[in-house]
Amino acid sequence: MTVTRFAGVVPPIVTPLTAERTVDVASLERLVEHLLSAGVDGIFALGSSGETVFLSDEQRDRALEVIVKTASGAVPVLAGCIEPSTQRVIDRASAAVRLGVEAVVTTAPFYAIVGPHEIERHFRAVAAAVPVPVLAYDIPVCVHTKLSVGLLTRLAADGVLAGVKDSSGDDVAFRQLCLSVQQPDFGLLTGHEVVVDAMMLAGASGSVPGLGNVDPDGYVRLHRACLDGDWGRARAEQDRLTRLFRIVDAADPSTSAGATRGVGAFKTALTLLGIIESNTVSLPLRELDEVEAGRIRVELELAGLL
Amino acid sequence: MTVTRFAGVVPPIVTPLTAERTVDVASLERLVEHLLSAGVDGIFALGSSGETVFLSDEQRDRALEVIVKTASGAVPVLAGCIEPSTQRVIDRASAAVRLGVEAVVTTAPFYAIVGPHEIERHFRAVAAAVPVPVLAYDIPVCVHTKLSVGLLTRLAADGVLAGVKDSSGDDVAFRQLCLSVQQPDFGLLTGHEVVVDAMMLAGASGSVPGLGNVDPDGYVRLHRACLDGDWGRARAEQDRLTRLFRIVDAADPSTSAGATRGVGAFKTALTLLGIIESNTVSLPLRELDEVEAGRIRVELELAGLL
Amino acid sequence: MTVTRFAGVVPPIVTPLTAERTVDVASLERLVEHLLSAGVDGIFALGSSGETVFLSDEQRDRALEVIVKTASGAVPVLAGCIEPSTQRVIDRASAAVRLGVEAVVTTAPFYAIVGPHEIERHFRAVAAAVPVPVLAYDIPVCVHTKLSVGLLTRLAADGVLAGVKDSSGDDVAFRQLCLSVQQPDFGLLTGHEVVVDAMMLAGASGSVPGLGNVDPDGYVRLHRACLDGDWGRARAEQDRLTRLFRIVDAADPSTSAGATRGVGAFKTALTLLGIIESNTVSLPLRELDEVEAGRIRVELELAGLL
Amino acid sequence: MTVTRFAGVVPPIVTPLTAERTVDVASLERLVEHLLSAGVDGIFALGSSGETVFLSDEQRDRALEVIVKTASGAVPVLAGCIEPSTQRVIDRASAAVRLGVEAVVTTAPFYAIVGPHEIERHFRAVAAAVPVPVLAYDIPVCVHTKLSVGLLTRLAADGVLAGVKDSSGDDVAFRQLCLSVQQPDFGLLTGHEVVVDAMMLAGASGSVPGLGNVDPDGYVRLHRACLDGDWGRARAEQDRLTRLFRIVDAADPSTSAGATRGVGAFKTALTLLGIIESNTVSLPLRELDEVEAGRIRVELELAGLL
Repeated sequence: MTVTRFAGVVPPIVTPLTAERTVDVASLERLVEHLLSAGVDGIFALGSSGETVFLSDEQRDRALEVIVKTASGAVPVLAGCIEPSTQRVIDRASAAVRLGVEAVVTTAPFYAIVGPHEIERHFRAVAAAVPVPVLAYDIPVCVHTKLSVGLLTRLAADGVLAGVKDSSGDDVAFRQLCLSVQQPDFGLLTGHEVVVDAMMLAGASGSVPGLGNVDPDGYVRLHRACLDGDWGRARAEQDRLTRLFRIVDAADPSTSAGATRGVGAFKTALTLLGIIESNTVSLPLRELDEVEAGRIRVELELAGLL
Repeated sequence: MTVTRFAGVVPPIVTPLTAERTVDVASLERLVEHLLSAGVDGIFALGSSGETVFLSDEQRDRALEVIVKTASGAVPVLAGCIEPSTQRVIDRASAAVRLGVEAVVTTAPFYAIVGPHEIERHFRAVAAAVPVPVLAYDIPVCVHTKLSVGLLTRLAADGVLAGVKDSSGDDVAFRQLCLSVQQPDFGLLTGHEVVVDAMMLAGASGSVPGLGNVDPDGYVRLHRACLDGDWGRARAEQDRLTRLFRIVDAADPSTSAGATRGVGAFKTALTLLGIIESNTVSLPLRELDEVEAGRIRVELELAGLL
Repeated sequence: MTVTRFAGVVPPIVTPLTAERTVDVASLERLVEHLLSAGVDGIFALGSSGETVFLSDEQRDRALEVIVKTASGAVPVLAGCIEPSTQRVIDRASAAVRLGVEAVVTTAPFYAIVGPHEIERHFRAVAAAVPVPVLAYDIPVCVHTKLSVGLLTRLAADGVLAGVKDSSGDDVAFRQLCLSVQQPDFGLLTGHEVVVDAMMLAGASGSVPGLGNVDPDGYVRLHRACLDGDWGRARAEQDRLTRLFRIVDAADPSTSAGATRGVGAFKTALTLLGIIESNTVSLPLRELDEVEAGRIRVELELAGLL
Repeated sequence: MTVTRFAGVVPPIVTPLTAERTVDVASLERLVEHLLSAGVDGIFALGSSGETVFLSDEQRDRALEVIVKTASGAVPVLAGCIEPSTQRVIDRASAAVRLGVEAVVTTAPFYAIVGPHEIERHFRAVAAAVPVPVLAYDIPVCVHTKLSVGLLTRLAADGVLAGVKDSSGDDVAFRQLCLSVQQPDFGLLTGHEVVVDAMMLAGASGSVPGLGNVDPDGYVRLHRACLDGDWGRARAEQDRLTRLFRIVDAADPSTSAGATRGVGAFKTALTLLGIIESNTVSLPLRELDEVEAGRIRVELELAGLL
């Protein structure tokens, strides 16, 4: 299978865990099938929603293995290789390639303080060492640097990058990027599930919606409406999904933050939908409790999913 | 004249200055007429593009006077009242109301460190003291706090605010706000001139485009395409304008930043178009030089404006 | 009177307000005398603790007038001229000079986005226009830019700046600055009242302690211990003052932030000490209530002030 | 050997690499001996200066093994276990303990967005799982959260943490922490090599100076002067070291940032001193070149080290 362009709906799949925090294989298989049967265009494994930085290499390899096997070539699998430095990214990418992924996705270095030259050297070194396409993951809220339009455009032109997953929240820069990149097969994937319609209008090729774990059918409908140029239909679907996204507000903010609220909500919703067994998350995150799950149930009902 | 809703194209007008840095009345009159003849829906005076924080009260009053008089009721004039604290905003708002503006626009307090309670108290006190509608100006890049969706929704529901000018760059929050506000006449104006089409699709009622000083016709066409639901046409117009926005990259980045590059470019473009006399800006900004102006000329030609 | 160097204890005096929020002249006179009788080396009027950005020009002029008159040449009065842009700073500096201050203190431009070139041009333009010494006020938590060691060193060498008030919280940069500046009469004043001993050891010439409103005697003793090289005594005094600084934690954090907690606490302490009449603060700050004042009373008693 | 308190000079040792980027064992042994012969009180392995996040687990284990063996019990070895999440920290800590370290040092989780509850849970879970003392590493410039005084005080009181390495640059919070912690054996180590004298006066128990790789004798003299209460002598030594720290400015800023400039300078200085073989650093950092090394040579000569 050859991927000509990274496009369409590519949910960043969560990694179901057992109570002992091993990868829950049966749940993960069901989740992959849930996504495939909705008609998604790819699966992004081991992204932020996949708790990638929380997992050991063994957990990561196991998850990739299950996802690749279950997808069985129906759609490409992209693997997040998210490590603080170049060699560690390359090591993870090698493992992922051995396990059969079509592409890898990596951020700028993090933790260590670096500048634009170190960041460019990083992407060039990763791409040179990895035999599959490399996409950049632009997520300043985690990495604390923004990949500039100039850098991404240059790396696209030089064939270093095959695309970008934009979770920067910077729609102005994303628009400039859409106009700036001259390679028609460069993937322009938005990571913001509540503005997919707007970003598709702005020039995105697809989306990587965390909420797409919960409602992949909605995102597939949304994407098709965009391709049809039926922006009114796209907007209506997006508005429904944006409301559903409120499940990330279910966790008590006085005892939870960020990742607990996001991944915790997606996993809890998936248990309520009967797709995964447990809403267990990695330490130091905490599982959402019954009261919080009740709020999610209400939103799922409002969205017509329960 | 009664404004039922703040909507449409409302350019944040620049304040032309003479070489001695007094308000250049003739240039300002021509600029207002330039905007009116394009069919804009309102004028936002003394915003960031208007160099408001650089100007003395005398300069501000003079600019407002000229703008209100030249607009002569054809469109509403909104006045930025941008001061670090509550009483100073109220004082400026009183002056602006005396000079005939239809609404005032104000940010959260800045410089002094405040939290959500101080910010809410600020907007409530301003609205209570000012006899015209008050819009919030959400511009964290200047104010260094983001107005939360919850706060804006609450102030909309309580009739404290008549709208928001969103220059937050946070399209995710803006989308949530569009869905969250229940008052149909609440103004949802985007301040990001390169994504107006996308934000209109997301639910905006209009835009406050700094670049609209230079090409108001383009923004009026863009807005009408959005109202017509012709998103393909809107996108094409937006793409042209997004390219034109590159004039803000004309100034040498090794000797200029932020406001110099933005306001400096708008004013330089307006001199090249023959609308204002001089590209003089307030200290400590600097004027763009001949070489930089040359780059802007190229972009104006590419955009079909010269 | 000629100031040879800005040094010693220079409290940033608060601006007492009446219930109607006019300057409370009698309270302000008592406060100046409270400071003078402790033996302070100067008074910094209209700084952040003086609520300068909250006040109208009339309030500011009134406060300066009272402070200069009451100080009556016993110690120099420095005036904060804190405005977003160059001309507005110059205008305020002219007023302050007319009212008899020995020096003015100004920040980099704020609100508008500027870079190093604009900032340097700002300080040079202010100094060129103002007939008294100019000190830079480095307070990134308010201004959102840090004045670099390189810039301050250059402006010191060129005679543009007579000193700096460092409220940057960046002790590493401050130490580098102390070693970098070659002008022995350049004022190196720390604005952090809880580390004055450490910063004096590092090379500071004095301090601008907000808490010095409440306990000027303590800061004068601390400064003398430093001058004597009796660092053990300095540390003991500082430790006592650092504990006293906990009065800024008295206000309920769920309904107050930053300036409310700091200035609010200083003013409340001064009312409990009988020096000023009311703890009224400017909008949108709020006054501390009885319960919160009770916490401050406890700290004042522990510190031996009540 | 029982460590009663983490105190004194504990350099964060760099990890010498061969041209092929394997651990350079002979160089590392010489470097450990260089530190021991100066009389340091401990060695902090695999900290930020040790390029910990750049290294593979194999490289880390090898480095630890060499350091522990060469130190051979003369001083305690602390191991940085710096990973984004709880389980990964515990896994690294287990390896480090097997290799014989006396304590482990860990940050708050990074990359993933977490809040105070997740951070507290993290430190408690790590301490519960690790059989040696745990120190917190507070380095917001890398982790992007600041550990609050309240949290650290609570974890000290509960016996969860044995100390903190403070690289926060927040001297105000550090002073409050020194007064707030009631456990006399709690380690209060400053990570800022240019203000050790000031932080010792403020209550630190010791320092973790990156520059201590280059001039451990200087830091040992400085520490002893502090213990003697001879603050004048301490300051003079610190001033010399602060000047020497300018080696981190040797790398061309237009092609290097952060870690390249810091670790790159330390390693280059150590090659010039003949202690390590090569200034090789991990990708995507770059080695300093001849011109840059020349600048470092000048500083080493000025400091009396060459």
